[in-house]
Amino acid sequence: MGSTGSIGTQTLDVVREQPERFAVYAITAHRSVDKLVEQAVEFRPEVVCIADESKYGELCEKLNAALGKDADMMKVWAGSDAIAEMVTLPSIDIVVAAMVGYAGLRPTMEAIRAGKTIALANKETLVVAGEIICSLAQQYHAPILPVDSEHSAIFQSLVGEDRSEIEKILLTASGGPFRTWTLDRIAKATAADALRHPNWDMGAKITIDSASMMNKGFEVIEAKWLFGVDVEKIEVLVHPQSIVHSAVQFTDGAVKAQLGAPDMRLPIQYALTFPERVGASFPRLDLFKTANLTFEKPDLERFPNLRLAYDAMHKGGNMPCVLNAANEVVNLAFRQGKMGFLEMSDVIQKTMDATAFISAPAYEDYVASDEEARKIAASMI
Amino acid sequence: MGSTGSIGTQTLDVVREQPERFAVYAITAHRSVDKLVEQAVEFRPEVVCIADESKYGELCEKLNAALGKDADMMKVWAGSDAIAEMVTLPSIDIVVAAMVGYAGLRPTMEAIRAGKTIALANKETLVVAGEIICSLAQQYHAPILPVDSEHSAIFQSLVGEDRSEIEKILLTASGGPFRTWTLDRIAKATAADALRHPNWDMGAKITIDSASMMNKGFEVIEAKWLFGVDVEKIEVLVHPQSIVHSAVQFTDGAVKAQLGAPDMRLPIQYALTFPERVGASFPRLDLFKTANLTFEKPDLERFPNLRLAYDAMHKGGNMPCVLNAANEVVNLAFRQGKMGFLEMSDVIQKTMDATAFISAPAYEDYVASDEEARKIAASMI
Repeated sequence: MGSTGSIGTQTLDVVREQPERFAVYAITAHRSVDKLVEQAVEFRPEVVCIADESKYGELCEKLNAALGKDADMMKVWAGSDAIAEMVTLPSIDIVVAAMVGYAGLRPTMEAIRAGKTIALANKETLVVAGEIICSLAQQYHAPILPVDSEHSAIFQSLVGEDRSEIEKILLTASGGPFRTWTLDRIAKATAADALRHPNWDMGAKITIDSASMMNKGFEVIEAKWLFGVDVEKIEVLVHPQSIVHSAVQFTDGAVKAQLGAPDMRLPIQYALTFPERVGASFPRLDLFKTANLTFEKPDLERFPNLRLAYDAMHKGGNMPCVLNAANEVVNLAFRQGKMGFLEMSDVIQKTMDATAFISAPAYEDYVASDEEARKIAASMI
Repeated sequence: MGSTGSIGTQTLDVVREQPERFAVYAITAHRSVDKLVEQAVEFRPEVVCIADESKYGELCEKLNAALGKDADMMKVWAGSDAIAEMVTLPSIDIVVAAMVGYAGLRPTMEAIRAGKTIALANKETLVVAGEIICSLAQQYHAPILPVDSEHSAIFQSLVGEDRSEIEKILLTASGGPFRTWTLDRIAKATAADALRHPNWDMGAKITIDSASMMNKGFEVIEAKWLFGVDVEKIEVLVHPQSIVHSAVQFTDGAVKAQLGAPDMRLPIQYALTFPERVGASFPRLDLFKTANLTFEKPDLERFPNLRLAYDAMHKGGNMPCVLNAANEVVNLAFRQGKMGFLEMSDVIQKTMDATAFISAPAYEDYVASDEEARKIAASMI
């Protein structure tokens, strides 16, 4: 899901290297028709699906033009209902959830209900509805394997260990492009500034989240759900070199970490091949050539989003969902030049204050809170 | 075994913290009677053994004086045969092999034959006779758990992983007190210079081995046997901060490492409690306060012992045993002021050249090679 995005294309890179191990059954995109057609021609999936129904005609035409008679063998679907159905098809073993934002929630829930293994890149799914997702995953025996490099590092550090022996999770953060900027300079930052990420090549939405450290706040919440630890036990370490992808400290004081070159294909492949590791030609980490590894405390004054994420998690209930909804609204508004960088945090804070609190939300409550929060946030732009 | 040494006393520190989990059945020392008596009074073992038989009378007297009538309940033995018998006693579950040098070989073999779990700190045992030790351990189902911080780190990084997926072992080294010294200055180094180790508090013999990097050479050989990988796959990284205790790179390019404050009690406890981890009050690693982590290639010109160790391992057979024997002789001679720092490597090299090569030695061959090499090395001082 989300095959034309950054994680999606890198997932297909991994599949391309392991043709004897993986076959692509279905691919979906939001609205990138040309890229989706290109992938369909190369990987010949049985189902191709476009989320934006208005693009359905164009998709069919272009597939016919590219594939000729072969296009008849391919099912071409459109819309979010189709995606939610698609992920339950019996031929599918692993669903890579790499859509952007809240849109990933519903199809991921359907895939879990169908007992699929979930390779989860869409962190908003756990941010919004971690409690429901985790209890569903348990009920339907659907393993959730992290794709995020940080969570993959934590997951790898926990292989063979007893999770009850976790003392602390050390979640690393590059610090983003504004790590060394003053508060005044950050206030004037533009989308173009934020998109110059030092270490990782990512999509536009997550790159802004990264610059504002909301991405790290989301990752704290994601880690809470994936590894079953309280947020108090999750500490963020700014580590500008992005070599230590994250670490776990155990009750005896030992710290285990996973390190690597900054390349998303490694955690993607690990999620696909777990519990095996498979030989791959990814660039190797060369510690002799890396800069000195450094670690700093995050500055919550210059990056208030990180504090907002902890606040949302402490409050619990629908608050992380509200945090995410408000963030999606301000993230887009900032990219469109409609608001300043630091105003994003103000709007999120005010949205959290103004949205009705629900302490034990059901799925429908999340949908309603998401909608309410988006309206409140939008009204402030 | 070796309870009064650096590892021995720290092992007893761990035991002292976990009285509900561990009891001390037997303690041995080479010749430190007073310290051994003190430990006997505190831990009340059933057997107390002194390797140096000339100290037996003094030991008995001092135990009687310290314990009064309670001394009658304690068996007091002396000599290497007694130690070799002691480790096979049925009440013993775990034998901590913390003697210094070649002397650890025989009792460790006996403990393995008795099916005990071996917590191995005496690396010379594997350097001298790794092949025999490993095949014995397999035959008698005796687990060998590393106590060295580096090997414990590798072992911890491998928990839950498949050893066939190891691509490379990254063995870290502090670089010792002469890391930044020129060759000329190293040539004039004294024992007092070498004993100023920057990060670890160790015994005198291992501290000299550390300064000359023979200790690291031994650790390469030890890692080869413990983890079943060729020495070509073991790379030494000089890491002056001693925070990353070692790491493993897997076939997919992922690197896993164990980090921690430099405190031997952690790997000692891990060897005793494995596969569990047990809460402990050891100092925690604070990455915010550590210096930048750096990694350098070792300099084989200034530290030729590392090259000698790889050479011995490539040649195989009795050569690592010869390497160790020559090193024990020159290490002592250097501490006694009888030779220069760099002369140690020359004598080891010449001893390796002069000792008869045996490609597939039995235990008796090791004993003979050890004796021959010691004579040859001693003749050059």
